[in-house]
Amino acid sequence: MIKPGIPKGTRDFGPVVVRKRNYIFQTIRETFEVFGFQPLETPAMENLSTLTGKYGEEGDKLIFKILDNGEIFERAQQAKDSRELASLISEKALRYDLTIPFARYVVMNQHELALPFKRYQMQPVWRGDRPAKGRYREFYQCDADVVGSNSLLNEVELLLIYDTVFTKLGMQGYELRINNRKILAALAELVGKPELLTDITISIDKLDKIGMDGVKGELRDRGLSEADITIIENFLGIQGDNKSVLEQLRQLFAASETGKKGIEELDFVLHSGYTSFNTTPILDLTLARGLNYYTGLIVEVKAPASVKMGSIGGGGRYDDLTGLFGLPGISGVGISFGVDRIYDVLEELKLFPQTAQQSTRVLFLNLGEASARAAFGYMMQLRAQGIPAELFHESAKMDKQMKYADKRAIPFVIILGESELQEGLVSVKNLTTGKQEKIPADALVNYTF
Amino acid sequence: MIKPGIPKGTRDFGPVVVRKRNYIFQTIRETFEVFGFQPLETPAMENLSTLTGKYGEEGDKLIFKILDNGEIFERAQQAKDSRELASLISEKALRYDLTIPFARYVVMNQHELALPFKRYQMQPVWRGDRPAKGRYREFYQCDADVVGSNSLLNEVELLLIYDTVFTKLGMQGYELRINNRKILAALAELVGKPELLTDITISIDKLDKIGMDGVKGELRDRGLSEADITIIENFLGIQGDNKSVLEQLRQLFAASETGKKGIEELDFVLHSGYTSFNTTPILDLTLARGLNYYTGLIVEVKAPASVKMGSIGGGGRYDDLTGLFGLPGISGVGISFGVDRIYDVLEELKLFPQTAQQSTRVLFLNLGEASARAAFGYMMQLRAQGIPAELFHESAKMDKQMKYADKRAIPFVIILGESELQEGLVSVKNLTTGKQEKIPADALVNYTF
Repeated sequence: MIKPGIPKGTRDFGPVVVRKRNYIFQTIRETFEVFGFQPLETPAMENLSTLTGKYGEEGDKLIFKILDNGEIFERAQQAKDSRELASLISEKALRYDLTIPFARYVVMNQHELALPFKRYQMQPVWRGDRPAKGRYREFYQCDADVVGSNSLLNEVELLLIYDTVFTKLGMQGYELRINNRKILAALAELVGKPELLTDITISIDKLDKIGMDGVKGELRDRGLSEADITIIENFLGIQGDNKSVLEQLRQLFAASETGKKGIEELDFVLHSGYTSFNTTPILDLTLARGLNYYTGLIVEVKAPASVKMGSIGGGGRYDDLTGLFGLPGISGVGISFGVDRIYDVLEELKLFPQTAQQSTRVLFLNLGEASARAAFGYMMQLRAQGIPAELFHESAKMDKQMKYADKRAIPFVIILGESELQEGLVSVKNLTTGKQEKIPADALVNYTF
Repeated sequence: MIKPGIPKGTRDFGPVVVRKRNYIFQTIRETFEVFGFQPLETPAMENLSTLTGKYGEEGDKLIFKILDNGEIFERAQQAKDSRELASLISEKALRYDLTIPFARYVVMNQHELALPFKRYQMQPVWRGDRPAKGRYREFYQCDADVVGSNSLLNEVELLLIYDTVFTKLGMQGYELRINNRKILAALAELVGKPELLTDITISIDKLDKIGMDGVKGELRDRGLSEADITIIENFLGIQGDNKSVLEQLRQLFAASETGKKGIEELDFVLHSGYTSFNTTPILDLTLARGLNYYTGLIVEVKAPASVKMGSIGGGGRYDDLTGLFGLPGISGVGISFGVDRIYDVLEELKLFPQTAQQSTRVLFLNLGEASARAAFGYMMQLRAQGIPAELFHESAKMDKQMKYADKRAIPFVIILGESELQEGLVSVKNLTTGKQEKIPADALVNYTF
């Protein structure tokens, strides 16, 4: 008999964890819904051709491919290496993110969809990354995107969604950091090397991890001169509140159309006059974000500084999401929540409310058939009011039943002994306080559990 | 450019369908919760060794195996056929049902779990069946099981869960059919061929599809004599209400300990005196259920006769769920909801409530910047009250904005024209009735949308 286990990088979620995770999902879902976003669910399996080539060479290697059922032996004979073998015997793969399936869905349903299409999606994805602390091979993504609208109101709305969700979750001290890819493009122009935009972006993106000296070294390696690097260093050193930073950018990019457009967009998002934020977004010129399909606003959510966690969400505007599938010219903007990390932050800051941890509230002790039958009736009354209640499954020793209540963390126990039955009473024991009281049986439905 | 598609037998669920499905899931989940069941989630991928050999030879072929990442070419060289090839280059597979992962979880966590462990699980499973109407390669299962208790109260509770869920869903005319495997075992004894219990069960299970003559033919093929078949036919012909059927069974199995035990169990479940059902379970001796691990009560839920759908749920008691993983002697009993079919039944009978189909309730028209800014504030007030509301993303022609409302089936539109802005009013248009009224802007939050 092999000791049972689960694959590396995957997790079982027991009752306590599922409930807390559902509290996070539910908070996000409710917010998406009041903002007018619509749910979408796509299959776990996509055609391999839908996924291949969309996540870079490294990404392709991490896609989990599904073996074709049936006869694969003959086909496999033609392969000359691992890669070819995989392509001969596998035509489906597991979802790697939610963005590509979303793009595929939009293209397939373009004639039915009302644009702008505001969709949210909360489903697991699978990646063959090396498992590590906080890095799993199966994890949920939780995305909201708007496609088919260039309006900056969408950017404002998406930032408000972050603002609303993290306020609801009670997470004080988190930061909403924003920047704009057009500003970075203008920087590359300023340096005189617009073709190195991606190299500059990738280098700046590592600032958190490798520091300014590291970034400078990286820029040097990627072919930028000392003069270029000084310009970039000065740019990254711009300090001040949002208004002041915008003002400095205006001077720096006075001659750049791209720069001015980026500044205008940031100014609108920050000072639209449409709304105010509980937590004002911070303009952070060092924010770059790795993915190179962003073209406008970029955003990242940082956990409160007291927990060392880094980014708990991010997103931005991208052009041409669906061009990959033959439908060009559809712009999009989206955000994502990092649910696993949000979970860890809430746990560390003890922010999960009591209600997110509640399971059965009331255990009726089973003290023999007459008592149990009466208890069953009362139990069904409580359940009808939405109060999770159980009757112990058998007439066991009191001790055993109390241990069950304890292990399950059930806060109330109800006792219907012979005397209670005769008097039409029930004894309610609060296991948290230890207090026990007898009340009329028909008052049970109004008791506060 | 390849036209994008999704794998055979899988589905995208758009917003309308997701909402209706969530209504079903939510109704079932709430019921599981008030009955004291606890949520569990297991990974989509299991070790292949956990799944292989658990679903019969046919089942094994339908398991979706995941190709190992990295170098597989060398290993593949040793294979002599498809089966061997698969086992050399795949060590993980997709979940095939929720029962085996549950058993695996119980064994892995046996020292932490409070027994009886009442868990529910609602997750997709994957099977390489040939896709057909109503048969998918990815579909949700929705199970509740109790392990670690032999008490028949569990059977009563699980039948009550069916009763509660289908009552909540408003599904009138559905049937809860029950039988007991011990009765079928007693029948095999009566025939004098207890070793043919599985054959008898499998044959009876086909009665719905192939009729009595078909069953008789099948029994003959499986080695039963004409005398045996007459006994079985007489058994299957037993008619009457539950009490009468039980009485006839008592006479038939007066000499059988197994039979008497089965009758006693059915009698308890039907007449425990603990509770009553909205829909009384029907004792149906022709109910056999295919899976051969059942040992006590078996149950099947039939859709209302007016919709031709057949079974929309089923379950039963099984012994030794976890023995497969080295933990013997743990009995279990469980039920399952067929969510896809329940969906189809609710759709056909038009039983989805309005609330299960609601998306955005209110669209604020965008009539230029001043109007849109004011609208944004009102919109945020409605959202704060949980009313899904949107502001059209740009100041477009009225006609275009109304078309969006129509396509999205948004029931109310709010207009803040210049005159409204000056007078402190808003115009509310009900798109269902066509009625339009002007109300004070500050009365909007109390308006019934």
